[in-house]
Amino acid sequence: MRASRYFLPILKENPREAEIVSHRLMLRAGMIRQQGQGSFSWLPLGKRVLDKVCAIIREEQNRAGALEILMPTIQSAELWRESGRYDDYGKEMLRIQDRGERDMLYGPTNEEMVTDIFRSYVKSYKDLPLNLYHIQWKYRDEVRPRFGVMRSREFLMKDAYSFDLDYEGARAAYNRMFVSYLRTFTRMGLKAIPMRAETGPIGGDLSHEFIILADTGESQVFCHKDFLSLDVPGEDVDFTDDAEIGGIVRNWTTPYAATDDMHDDKAWDAIAEGERLSARGIEVGHIFHFGEKYSKPMGASVTGPDGKEHFVSMGSYGIGPSRLIAAIIEASHDEAGIIWPESVAPFDIGLINMKPGDAECDRICAELEQAYEKSGVSVLYDDTDQRAGAKFATMDLIGIPWQVIVGPRGAAAGEVEVKRRATGERHNKPIAEVLAATGAGA
Amino acid sequence: MRASRYFLPILKENPREAEIVSHRLMLRAGMIRQQGQGSFSWLPLGKRVLDKVCAIIREEQNRAGALEILMPTIQSAELWRESGRYDDYGKEMLRIQDRGERDMLYGPTNEEMVTDIFRSYVKSYKDLPLNLYHIQWKYRDEVRPRFGVMRSREFLMKDAYSFDLDYEGARAAYNRMFVSYLRTFTRMGLKAIPMRAETGPIGGDLSHEFIILADTGESQVFCHKDFLSLDVPGEDVDFTDDAEIGGIVRNWTTPYAATDDMHDDKAWDAIAEGERLSARGIEVGHIFHFGEKYSKPMGASVTGPDGKEHFVSMGSYGIGPSRLIAAIIEASHDEAGIIWPESVAPFDIGLINMKPGDAECDRICAELEQAYEKSGVSVLYDDTDQRAGAKFATMDLIGIPWQVIVGPRGAAAGEVEVKRRATGERHNKPIAEVLAATGAGA
Repeated sequence: MRASRYFLPILKENPREAEIVSHRLMLRAGMIRQQGQGSFSWLPLGKRVLDKVCAIIREEQNRAGALEILMPTIQSAELWRESGRYDDYGKEMLRIQDRGERDMLYGPTNEEMVTDIFRSYVKSYKDLPLNLYHIQWKYRDEVRPRFGVMRSREFLMKDAYSFDLDYEGARAAYNRMFVSYLRTFTRMGLKAIPMRAETGPIGGDLSHEFIILADTGESQVFCHKDFLSLDVPGEDVDFTDDAEIGGIVRNWTTPYAATDDMHDDKAWDAIAEGERLSARGIEVGHIFHFGEKYSKPMGASVTGPDGKEHFVSMGSYGIGPSRLIAAIIEASHDEAGIIWPESVAPFDIGLINMKPGDAECDRICAELEQAYEKSGVSVLYDDTDQRAGAKFATMDLIGIPWQVIVGPRGAAAGEVEVKRRATGERHNKPIAEVLAATGAGA
Repeated sequence: MRASRYFLPILKENPREAEIVSHRLMLRAGMIRQQGQGSFSWLPLGKRVLDKVCAIIREEQNRAGALEILMPTIQSAELWRESGRYDDYGKEMLRIQDRGERDMLYGPTNEEMVTDIFRSYVKSYKDLPLNLYHIQWKYRDEVRPRFGVMRSREFLMKDAYSFDLDYEGARAAYNRMFVSYLRTFTRMGLKAIPMRAETGPIGGDLSHEFIILADTGESQVFCHKDFLSLDVPGEDVDFTDDAEIGGIVRNWTTPYAATDDMHDDKAWDAIAEGERLSARGIEVGHIFHFGEKYSKPMGASVTGPDGKEHFVSMGSYGIGPSRLIAAIIEASHDEAGIIWPESVAPFDIGLINMKPGDAECDRICAELEQAYEKSGVSVLYDDTDQRAGAKFATMDLIGIPWQVIVGPRGAAAGEVEVKRRATGERHNKPIAEVLAATGAGA
């Protein structure tokens, strides 16, 4: 992509409304634009990151055996009356009437709808386990939306729902999502720690929040340092092996870990002081087992191997991709701007032409651009006539992992400068070598 | 994907509510489920097709120079008051109040919001041309939603918006989208014919509908037979060459073509009878040039090369991916079910194990499944213990382009049967040959 044809509205000033660093950097980097209270457009750079984040979530959901569907944003109030939540949910639910004065709502979550889908089709335990997920917009009419996409009213959510014959099956489904989340966050360069959580308005008796550690995090968390060295399973992990998956969950739930509101001073004091980790954290995922909370009132049952009807045991599993992007920035930035982990970076390479119009610089840049694109490496090529200083500042701000800088002096010597955004390291490299290595991240 | 782990709720009976063939087949094939009036969930098979259709749309939008963004579904009424459309739009607009009693709406289209984005950032003609698009849910509260996803209330739409300094630039932007649409529909196996259209509530003075021919189409269309043999440009078409793109548009707008309401008897009579094509059609895309209709009231202007302020000249360009899928089915089905064009098929191969449990059949199927997946060919492997007849009927119904049938007799002879869904042709093939050819569509 050539910067001259791209839409990358960089802000030079810090926007006053931004209270936290991710909000400030997303606005400044031209990733998002506020459209209303708690409502944002994703501009081209932000959309690319959103796509990358969603792709990783999807791959890990699919790997764990979940199936992707897509439910509508607008739901009928009838369904929510069946579960009893229409009246319970309160003012955070955006209630709507259509032209026929029928009560509808903008879904804040989808337990009711997915249970309705399930009960319409699934009649036998033989069709279980089943886990259906979608990535769809949700709306929660918060009193005070803030912090940009970290706490907005309209937000994207991946929500998965598992259906099983009994508690044992549901627990195995819960474990699969647990491990899937470990992999998902790790692939995004995050250190995520599962912490036992209250089950809240969704209800249920087993729940974990996944908290990532970031100095600027919203809440205080407490855990054992062992978490920092626990292994995250590789992509060869066998999600059909309940014992293996259960073992991983056991390892990840044995050391002490708690959010502020679940913190237990006694357990904390029992940990040697040097082993304690008290840090700031951001919730990026939440998983629940809630059994028959919806299946019973809504009549979602299957015939078991015993020939009897059983209400299915359910769980739900959420990740907010839009919120997650803000969290990644909170965990990975410096004074100059964002530092994207390579897996979610909007472009792999930022190619800077120091002197557009110089025949040699133009030629080398075009050649590099073509070589990268050919090998599937995405490039943002700054071919504009801005000052070099402004180009460097922009590339640092938007956080592309590698910068490749082409200037007249280097060009004459057959060299370009390669800079790694995360460390600031720079070194010169022969152009031929860079061309040969395309695909290897410069 | 193994059928035993998939969620593919096939309906054996024709659903009574389905009035047209695409609605009936999408319900029967387990692609969609109705959730309310004019509201549908996309089940796993349908979601796969939706993704394929959106991917083609995206590729062709990007190729034509449009940039992807993502605007929220809920919009503030304020913006629509600026353009004057808040009061004009009528009951089709879903109006909402939030907890603070602020007027909002579920966007039926995004001219106002994208114009607001534009005016916030773009100040100079040097940043033009610009074309921003998104693929996002829209809501139109129709009096009588019907025909499944062909005319639903909540529907997915790709809408692009172009911004140019003057009419000449806007016309070039319009032409690029025109050609992009030709390529998009052709890649989906459709014959799309651009027809001059009324501009309707979006306003403006230049507009084309893209109509695909299908015997079960909703409306009567009239055109010259020359359309059937006009060339659609290849992927090497140069979207930066206004003259080349303009020439293609000229070729595609010269022969007579009109929808029922724009039909001109005189012009029609002037065509030799043998050259006339009167057929049924379905609208799948609509492009508009509307100049300053929004930029003027909303103050979206840039400084021109003359140093003066100019309101930008705009256009908008829509395709409904959910509607499009129904249209593809209307254009491509038979008595037994859907016949997917390969480019949008949910799976490339339907692999049928005639005798699960038979060691040889199981082994061959597993080997084929693995070989296909390795070469990037997607397979739905029916490993269930249903009767063979039911398996064949399902594969025909869901329209996978190629069926590969593995039975004990063939297995003993080292052969499988390969069936092409579109023609019904079947022939036996040595397994080794099929394995060697993986990637070549069996």
